[in-house]
Amino acid sequence: MIEITSAQNTTFKLLKSLKQKKYRYREEKFILEGYRFVDDALKNNLSSLGVFFHERVWFELSDDKQKSYEELSEVYILSIELFEMISETENSQGILGVFQMVSTKLEDVDSENSPFLVYCDRLQDPGNLGTVIRTADAAGVKDIIVNKGCVDVYNSKVLRSTAGSILNVNLIFVASDLDAITLLKDKGYHMIVTDLASQYRYDEREAYKTKNCLVIGNEGNGVSEEIKTLADVKVKIPIYGLAESLNASVAAGIMIYKIRDLNAN
Amino acid sequence: MIEITSAQNTTFKLLKSLKQKKYRYREEKFILEGYRFVDDALKNNLSSLGVFFHERVWFELSDDKQKSYEELSEVYILSIELFEMISETENSQGILGVFQMVSTKLEDVDSENSPFLVYCDRLQDPGNLGTVIRTADAAGVKDIIVNKGCVDVYNSKVLRSTAGSILNVNLIFVASDLDAITLLKDKGYHMIVTDLASQYRYDEREAYKTKNCLVIGNEGNGVSEEIKTLADVKVKIPIYGLAESLNASVAAGIMIYKIRDLNAN
Repeated sequence: MIEITSAQNTTFKLLKSLKQKKYRYREEKFILEGYRFVDDALKNNLSSLGVFFHERVWFELSDDKQKSYEELSEVYILSIELFEMISETENSQGILGVFQMVSTKLEDVDSENSPFLVYCDRLQDPGNLGTVIRTADAAGVKDIIVNKGCVDVYNSKVLRSTAGSILNVNLIFVASDLDAITLLKDKGYHMIVTDLASQYRYDEREAYKTKNCLVIGNEGNGVSEEIKTLADVKVKIPIYGLAESLNASVAAGIMIYKIRDLNAN
Repeated sequence: MIEITSAQNTTFKLLKSLKQKKYRYREEKFILEGYRFVDDALKNNLSSLGVFFHERVWFELSDDKQKSYEELSEVYILSIELFEMISETENSQGILGVFQMVSTKLEDVDSENSPFLVYCDRLQDPGNLGTVIRTADAAGVKDIIVNKGCVDVYNSKVLRSTAGSILNVNLIFVASDLDAITLLKDKGYHMIVTDLASQYRYDEREAYKTKNCLVIGNEGNGVSEEIKTLADVKVKIPIYGLAESLNASVAAGIMIYKIRDLNAN
């Protein structure tokens, strides 16, 4: 256990730098906050740089708890002032962890074991991206593709919105939609986009195959024209009332559960 | 057209008071912000106390536009300083309107014309309540019941999250769940709640009747025990993966579209 009281401490400086996307990717590390997140990440054997406690919180832990954290990771105790420089939650529980980013390669996705993928196309709102990841996890999706235009998944707001699901799914980052979709098609995935100019209502079974990849489009602009051109099928969720559209997370949820349950029944 | 430059002006003081729930209900008035909201409210003939412009925005409007606002409502021009005391949006368009609250009585709901109701039970997050109203509107729901424990629907964050749907639906405020549900059952509505201890999966047709009232529960605690006891049927949305739960707005969206589409087909 190491106490840190100076903002000039090297480990603290590294921790603080991870609040910025640039440094997260340079170090390939990110910050998780709160007991549930940190405990789950340790349980999942995510490689950890360290767990950081607010000094008051650490000294209130039982000896057994202290020992178990020390067995699983390096433990750092931050003075109140330093802890507050890092924490981004309103009612912080006084615990943070720094973990190694883990991602999967699209090449390694096994379409037999993972017959339903979700592909996030330029999701910009952190709450939406996090909620889509949470919903996909709930529906049993194991592999989630995140393209270049999406907000950083390791942003603290995205992480919070996943409600822990960030640790349950494999993330696949892709730079080129064309390359990714070509590979997905080679693997037998049926590419589905939502589009008002669609052939199918979202609840028509024939719109789907046994291996599906659902693209969730940007909040304001929907799925990109490039991806729409590459899609195998376009579906729409009808609007019966006077609303102009559905919220992006809600539309994603309706689609994700529809595909999951059509294939389950 | 009346210019207001003093914070002591009576109309300005009334406008400012409406940022607080207590005064909104005393005056039975609320504030809408942005062109789309204000124009829609005027188009819907919502009774207006006035439309308030940021001075710079007003003087940039064409004569025709100015005239059309003046025909539809009293117009007030606020100095920059006063406008900014009221506005709650980040990139304000420089237009606000004050409108009369309108609500419907549960007694007046016509179950023949309104076979699907949504009942909001103690929704506390403004974004969730607004999103549920938007989703219900999208699904063609006309009447939305809001019980006493919900966050105020005229809160600016709720209004924004409705994306305009606040003007498309009838709101019914109820003080007693027991009285409301008794009346709903008398009208032939089948009361549906989501509950993990449920008889039915959410996608089993037999869980639903021709007249349905779906209760959307509180974010943390779900539907209240009192309402659960009064419900006709309990359904659940299965969790297939490792997520503990779905986001409240997403779960509501999945349920609302499921009921809408089972009854449409």
